[in-house]
Amino acid sequence: MATTAAAAPGAPASFPDAAASDPAALGWRCGSPPPPERRIRFEDGDHLRFPQWRWSFSHWRELVPTVEVARDAARTSPLPRDEQPDLDAIRFEPLGGGAPVTWSASLAANYTDGIVVLHRGRLIYERYFGALAADGPHIAFSVTKSFFGTLAEALIHAGQLDPSAPVGTLVPELAASAFGAATVSQVLDMTTALDYSEVYDDPASGFWDYARATGLQPRDAGAAAARTTYEFLARLRALGPHGRAFAYRSVNTDVIGWLMSRAAGVPLAELLRDRLWAPLGPEGDAYLQVDADGIPLVAVGLNARLRDLARFGEMLRLEGTLDGRRVLPAAVIATIREGGSREAFAGAGYATLPGWSYRRQWWVSHDAHGSFMGRGIHGQALYVDPRAEMVIARFASHPLASNVHLDPLSLPAYGAVARHLIAHRP
Amino acid sequence: MATTAAAAPGAPASFPDAAASDPAALGWRCGSPPPPERRIRFEDGDHLRFPQWRWSFSHWRELVPTVEVARDAARTSPLPRDEQPDLDAIRFEPLGGGAPVTWSASLAANYTDGIVVLHRGRLIYERYFGALAADGPHIAFSVTKSFFGTLAEALIHAGQLDPSAPVGTLVPELAASAFGAATVSQVLDMTTALDYSEVYDDPASGFWDYARATGLQPRDAGAAAARTTYEFLARLRALGPHGRAFAYRSVNTDVIGWLMSRAAGVPLAELLRDRLWAPLGPEGDAYLQVDADGIPLVAVGLNARLRDLARFGEMLRLEGTLDGRRVLPAAVIATIREGGSREAFAGAGYATLPGWSYRRQWWVSHDAHGSFMGRGIHGQALYVDPRAEMVIARFASHPLASNVHLDPLSLPAYGAVARHLIAHRP
Repeated sequence: MATTAAAAPGAPASFPDAAASDPAALGWRCGSPPPPERRIRFEDGDHLRFPQWRWSFSHWRELVPTVEVARDAARTSPLPRDEQPDLDAIRFEPLGGGAPVTWSASLAANYTDGIVVLHRGRLIYERYFGALAADGPHIAFSVTKSFFGTLAEALIHAGQLDPSAPVGTLVPELAASAFGAATVSQVLDMTTALDYSEVYDDPASGFWDYARATGLQPRDAGAAAARTTYEFLARLRALGPHGRAFAYRSVNTDVIGWLMSRAAGVPLAELLRDRLWAPLGPEGDAYLQVDADGIPLVAVGLNARLRDLARFGEMLRLEGTLDGRRVLPAAVIATIREGGSREAFAGAGYATLPGWSYRRQWWVSHDAHGSFMGRGIHGQALYVDPRAEMVIARFASHPLASNVHLDPLSLPAYGAVARHLIAHRP
Repeated sequence: MATTAAAAPGAPASFPDAAASDPAALGWRCGSPPPPERRIRFEDGDHLRFPQWRWSFSHWRELVPTVEVARDAARTSPLPRDEQPDLDAIRFEPLGGGAPVTWSASLAANYTDGIVVLHRGRLIYERYFGALAADGPHIAFSVTKSFFGTLAEALIHAGQLDPSAPVGTLVPELAASAFGAATVSQVLDMTTALDYSEVYDDPASGFWDYARATGLQPRDAGAAAARTTYEFLARLRALGPHGRAFAYRSVNTDVIGWLMSRAAGVPLAELLRDRLWAPLGPEGDAYLQVDADGIPLVAVGLNARLRDLARFGEMLRLEGTLDGRRVLPAAVIATIREGGSREAFAGAGYATLPGWSYRRQWWVSHDAHGSFMGRGIHGQALYVDPRAEMVIARFASHPLASNVHLDPLSLPAYGAVARHLIAHRP
């Protein structure tokens, strides 16, 4: 039971495995009141500790302020069920080699909280573990970025946002910051050069100042630190020229959010609801964490049901339509799927993503299937494989933040299912 | 426009009136980011300042952590519409005398955010103002108590909670506190004698320590104060004998919540959802604010749509049924409606409620109509008049906390509508 995280290259020595860290078994916040060993208190930072977060990722609103992103009660896109349990037995070789692993075993190895596979729009596989259920939301972390990056491209396509405009001309508060001279497109594709590090596993990383400014973590009492996301953004300084190298920094997405709310003139939660979420015909309402000023955390703060995440992927697979209705212009999706500069991406050194690129807050594989993904820390994933007519949505609560530890057992797993579906196509 | 709160006896000199304090016009949290004069930051306590709270009462989850209380998507109790706009012209004399006022004028005078009148289960009047809409929730404040008091009586009726048991025998953590020797029934009817004051308009009142412990207000940095609701309860001491006098203290309801979660063995949000909220067939999900340990604020923390509050009242009018289905045993409702000790109540000196009593977290008028109410600070109200077959649900954001300032223009207004409905009965 309590063994290490299997096959995670670079992983620290030992974590309780998925069964030993099962949040239901550990009884987080159970009891009235919960005894000290079962407490999860935001103000103590418990929510962002393992194994506590195996519970908190499925209960985010019980920890922080949030704003609703309502579904359209009059419209639910159908998701016909056509279970294919034989997926469980599919075997694949992990990235980097090693003994073959079954799809089924890979789910626990990656601390999966839920996974949904669509094939041609039919729900062929669906499993929930730990604290997650089909009708419950889970935090999407950086898959949130892919929602807002898609929306930003929609605003560009509609002529509401100029991709070549310097950010400082659109948001004067950022003129003196690192972002002032960067173009909208550079921010959107994360090729800005910032004097700021984002290393989740390093408590000294600038990311943790960001976490306190946004409200992901409690603020230090009396600290002179930024109290809101936008205050934090305005203090960042450049380090080198923009536009040359891909450098993944969540703050870029927050700048995009700021640009979008200025351009559209509506709050970001409304923008998401009206132009993307409700048109998808989701089963559930979603919600976004908000900061001290009520500004949504557009880089990490979306919480939604897994099937609804899959619906978003299916709309991208179908080039902007879902259930026979157009949700977004095909050109918006085409821009995302064509990807970004592979050269700019290569220097960032993502060992598990050779030949990939980043465009409009999506990770694009440039493989023969045209696959692309939204990716979030601790294993959140939305994987679209157009050639296999497949969408995989996954929520997880892996003990390590970086996907480099999950990719060896997830990317080849997705590929193996895709090949299986192509081979067994009727 | 910017005149005083009309006809509010004992009201301080001057507040902007409903039009001048309209939250939509003032643009709270509008802008990206909101400029300093439009900020509402929980950590600064802005959410509990007037006129800011005219916005925050309709946006509570955007300020604090909350837990969902889901509706049953398969069941919505019908609320047939039969508008009677002639209610607007009904005139009545305010409590304590003065020039007659129209129903319509009384709504603005009391800073009404929304009001719904049901007659024989038909929606005859419905208005929304300020930051509230029919599909949006509003904080119910102490009308929350009436939900949980009703649930507690249901547990008593089911034999799951002994009304004569001393609290200390059921919740040992409270044995040494003021509540240890009080019976369940005394706590439920608020006849405990506590060394603790609850005066909302006095910053020195013990209530504000409670507000910091529960998370209604930000906690002082480094304070030795209680960090959770239950920690706060355990520290309270008695002042005199229990059972003699009615003394309205929210902490009693939190004790009831603690007792209920122990007795039922499920979290309070689930208890509310499964045994009361979902069976009502509401239109919307509700939610409860939670404290640092995730314990719901059962005294003040329910947020719901106004029509759904009215559905709750209608179920009580119908002695436990709604839409032809039984929600609660008739005996549970009968216990509430028979009221409590008028003698115990009289000493508390509620000038606007002569002859009333308090039972199971409801205010009972003992008038000829058998009227009873749930009442919350700043004008939250659920008024049931069985004789007139009428239910009135109201959300408001009055500048003053105590209902003594609202009653002069609301209680006679409700009575006038009731008489109108009886007189014009088909």
